[in-house]
Amino acid sequence: MTASRTDTPGIVITGASGRMGQMLIKTVADHPRAHLVGAVERAGHDWVGQDVGLAMGGSEIGVTVTDDAAAAFAKAQAVIDFTSPAATIAFAGLAAEAGVVHVIGTTGMSDAEIAQLEPASRQSVQMRAGNMSLGVNLLVQLTKKVAAALDEDFDIEVIEAHHHHKVDAPSGTALMLGEAAAEGRGVVLSDVSDSGRDGITGARKRGDIGFSAIRGGDIVGEHDVLFAGQGERIVLRHLATDRAIFARGAIKAALWGQDKQPGQYDMLDVLGL
Amino acid sequence: MTASRTDTPGIVITGASGRMGQMLIKTVADHPRAHLVGAVERAGHDWVGQDVGLAMGGSEIGVTVTDDAAAAFAKAQAVIDFTSPAATIAFAGLAAEAGVVHVIGTTGMSDAEIAQLEPASRQSVQMRAGNMSLGVNLLVQLTKKVAAALDEDFDIEVIEAHHHHKVDAPSGTALMLGEAAAEGRGVVLSDVSDSGRDGITGARKRGDIGFSAIRGGDIVGEHDVLFAGQGERIVLRHLATDRAIFARGAIKAALWGQDKQPGQYDMLDVLGL
Amino acid sequence: MTASRTDTPGIVITGASGRMGQMLIKTVADHPRAHLVGAVERAGHDWVGQDVGLAMGGSEIGVTVTDDAAAAFAKAQAVIDFTSPAATIAFAGLAAEAGVVHVIGTTGMSDAEIAQLEPASRQSVQMRAGNMSLGVNLLVQLTKKVAAALDEDFDIEVIEAHHHHKVDAPSGTALMLGEAAAEGRGVVLSDVSDSGRDGITGARKRGDIGFSAIRGGDIVGEHDVLFAGQGERIVLRHLATDRAIFARGAIKAALWGQDKQPGQYDMLDVLGL
Amino acid sequence: MTASRTDTPGIVITGASGRMGQMLIKTVADHPRAHLVGAVERAGHDWVGQDVGLAMGGSEIGVTVTDDAAAAFAKAQAVIDFTSPAATIAFAGLAAEAGVVHVIGTTGMSDAEIAQLEPASRQSVQMRAGNMSLGVNLLVQLTKKVAAALDEDFDIEVIEAHHHHKVDAPSGTALMLGEAAAEGRGVVLSDVSDSGRDGITGARKRGDIGFSAIRGGDIVGEHDVLFAGQGERIVLRHLATDRAIFARGAIKAALWGQDKQPGQYDMLDVLGL
Repeated sequence: MTASRTDTPGIVITGASGRMGQMLIKTVADHPRAHLVGAVERAGHDWVGQDVGLAMGGSEIGVTVTDDAAAAFAKAQAVIDFTSPAATIAFAGLAAEAGVVHVIGTTGMSDAEIAQLEPASRQSVQMRAGNMSLGVNLLVQLTKKVAAALDEDFDIEVIEAHHHHKVDAPSGTALMLGEAAAEGRGVVLSDVSDSGRDGITGARKRGDIGFSAIRGGDIVGEHDVLFAGQGERIVLRHLATDRAIFARGAIKAALWGQDKQPGQYDMLDVLGL
Repeated sequence: MTASRTDTPGIVITGASGRMGQMLIKTVADHPRAHLVGAVERAGHDWVGQDVGLAMGGSEIGVTVTDDAAAAFAKAQAVIDFTSPAATIAFAGLAAEAGVVHVIGTTGMSDAEIAQLEPASRQSVQMRAGNMSLGVNLLVQLTKKVAAALDEDFDIEVIEAHHHHKVDAPSGTALMLGEAAAEGRGVVLSDVSDSGRDGITGARKRGDIGFSAIRGGDIVGEHDVLFAGQGERIVLRHLATDRAIFARGAIKAALWGQDKQPGQYDMLDVLGL
Repeated sequence: MTASRTDTPGIVITGASGRMGQMLIKTVADHPRAHLVGAVERAGHDWVGQDVGLAMGGSEIGVTVTDDAAAAFAKAQAVIDFTSPAATIAFAGLAAEAGVVHVIGTTGMSDAEIAQLEPASRQSVQMRAGNMSLGVNLLVQLTKKVAAALDEDFDIEVIEAHHHHKVDAPSGTALMLGEAAAEGRGVVLSDVSDSGRDGITGARKRGDIGFSAIRGGDIVGEHDVLFAGQGERIVLRHLATDRAIFARGAIKAALWGQDKQPGQYDMLDVLGL
Repeated sequence: MTASRTDTPGIVITGASGRMGQMLIKTVADHPRAHLVGAVERAGHDWVGQDVGLAMGGSEIGVTVTDDAAAAFAKAQAVIDFTSPAATIAFAGLAAEAGVVHVIGTTGMSDAEIAQLEPASRQSVQMRAGNMSLGVNLLVQLTKKVAAALDEDFDIEVIEAHHHHKVDAPSGTALMLGEAAAEGRGVVLSDVSDSGRDGITGARKRGDIGFSAIRGGDIVGEHDVLFAGQGERIVLRHLATDRAIFARGAIKAALWGQDKQPGQYDMLDVLGL
């Protein structure tokens, strides 16, 4: 691992000690077209002041963990941020001041919180996505297209599987796929969503979009969109087997954003879909 | 279709006009080692008095639908019965009087109703199963075995898919598989069952057995038992693609019962598992 | 079953006694927007002169099987033809003379044989497809799109499963999907096709499109297109569980063709994709 | 990572610099009930003389890579060996002299090479398996059982998927599953094996056991055993998503072997199946 490729964009990782933070640090440090220039943790965290490679239990990387995000951003071209809604809102302001690309993978943001990101996007490129994987974003597009091509003779079900630590169901990605299916059909998901099927449910309602959540082991993330008709079915499936795909997608977004105008973008912009 | 092979056991089908009744009649009529001798419907049903083949919209079979079950049973060696709990209890008494094998595929029976079947089984062979398919019964055995071999490091999930007319979830077969998994682990299913996962569920509880129900199109019936560990998974899967497998399993049971002592049996006895 | 809806297009089925012929006859006879006006078999076949419903072992339909195709076509608006290349070439000429829509599901036609169909298409609507299913044709479109969106970091594999009677591998539909993938990538399938993997194969060649053929039981037809990358996979899957989907697709094509100009069409035209 | 738990069995890893060797070193170093006491490479390898943790690009482990296998074995209770047939035969002799458990995961050994291992097993516990995963070995047992329970009305197919670097097909594990199916049916695999299906194959032969090999991306290893009948199918599936399962299985075998008599064992002995 090296941080010396100074001709490539320099990237700061926030939430450095988290599972996703560590994955991002490793992936940036190994990336041929980016290099790590900063690692941010909250004040008081015991990683602050340590070399981030050593803190992660590996070899030295040459980047010291800091709690001064503004100083870290000032030396960077992009910040990748998978933290919490409150932290992300603060980082958006600092990214705007520094004029760096802000790649946001933080989940669980309310509409009100999302609205607070907007002012910063007038001064900086803001790329926000619920899922940074190339494949998932492609699946979202396919789902919308197939839902538009088939009528309600085909029942739509979204089935997802994740590891046993996951605390919510259905997954954010499953809901994103359900939204895409609803959009393809010209309906509103909340009017047709059916999740948590259990007991005497009655026959399935025509037009419903169903959700099932499987939990077990260390499954990284699997999503099926099923279109079940009479005598035939179509399934669109995405399997994630390595969390690094989310890190690689975030770096791809950070690189993509280098020559873009300030504004709010999503992964479909990055992928050109 | 022919009803003339009088050297094979003669079979009566109850509930002749129902979807399963019609499937049974066709399957018996085409079977090389059984022949149809009776078709029973309730008094007042408009099929009574008609040839059952013509009533089904096909060619003549030579068996007239009757509402006199006792008379029909008297000419038979076996009765196959996928009706309702109350009807099945009455048929059990008539089967005992006639000394014929009673194959029971009726679902939704309470423990109290099941108890009412016992007296008749002292005089006749009674074979009752929630699912007559060879494959499903084999899957039940495998599930018990695997659940016993693996410890709670492997999370167990039962996932089933059925057509959009199905009114309950999880399916009876899924519950049968869950019971088998619980038995293999030495626990009680109701203590560890987790179905209808939705919303903020918290992390999956170690030792739980989860259930998911997918509904769509004309799916006949699919069941997966997933054992998800760290870095590996085992899946035991059964797919039914033709409802005739349930009819063929019932006929297999009727033939198997011809030389058995009166008593209560299940499909595992028939399969010798 | 009835043949009396004379306000709907009248359809002739060729190859009436074949498995697909019988499926087509049943499906047309039950169809709300079409009716059966003819059933053709070759001269000397023992069904000729019989009512086609009775010949199939069911009840009378009111259409007598004939070996005079020209006379049958003269009373019809469309002919559906799943026969052999030589028969189909002859039927194309007769369809042109009668001015009826010719729906062609015949497989195994060489390029030279296909060329012989062209003259007839100047006088009649000719719709030819290797697979008449709505879902398969949609899958072909999706495959081309995904192959174009992803680069060679994603390995493409086409996996198909069919019943144990099938005599060739890979299936025609698998090859159609492979062609679509190659087209999406801008390559020629024959340059990159890899089927029948067995023994010491060496590492998979980047850019190859692989094929696997599974055979067993009564599987109607299942096709997976796998795009396998690093840490993620996309699968596009079609399952056919009832051969009637091909018959329904053919009838849909026959109805679609009623108001079209003479010419050669395929299923994507019918579906408006 | 620590090597200080000296009350647990000390393990030597051969082929330390290989992909499997490095995986084994990490897994032993992190294991609560074993500790690393040696890492062996061939004379002249540039890792010899270096700390194995540093050589792997991580932090220091305190074990120096050596080319003196005999000296390394003398300090150990077990050696885990995923190398080449010739190396394994030599290590077997050294393990016998040292009286340590020899866990052998080396693949591609001929019958003649396997025979050369036998003398050493009179003085030491020798555990050899084609696949060290708990799940795969369980699947082998289930396959034999199901093949014995079902007759040839069910067609057996083994389908496997692996990463694009794999150079042979079908996988060794697929062949092991095929052997188990053949054994369950009382036939010899080579008489019924059908792999590399391609072109005009004719109908599937009753009783055959088919093999399909899918290659793509970084798939660790997936195996399906399909039993396809009329109207129903059973699938037994194993998914490996992390190569560490093979390392964990090997350590489990090393621990299991500590109190056993000299002799030759396999993974089913370890699992008590």
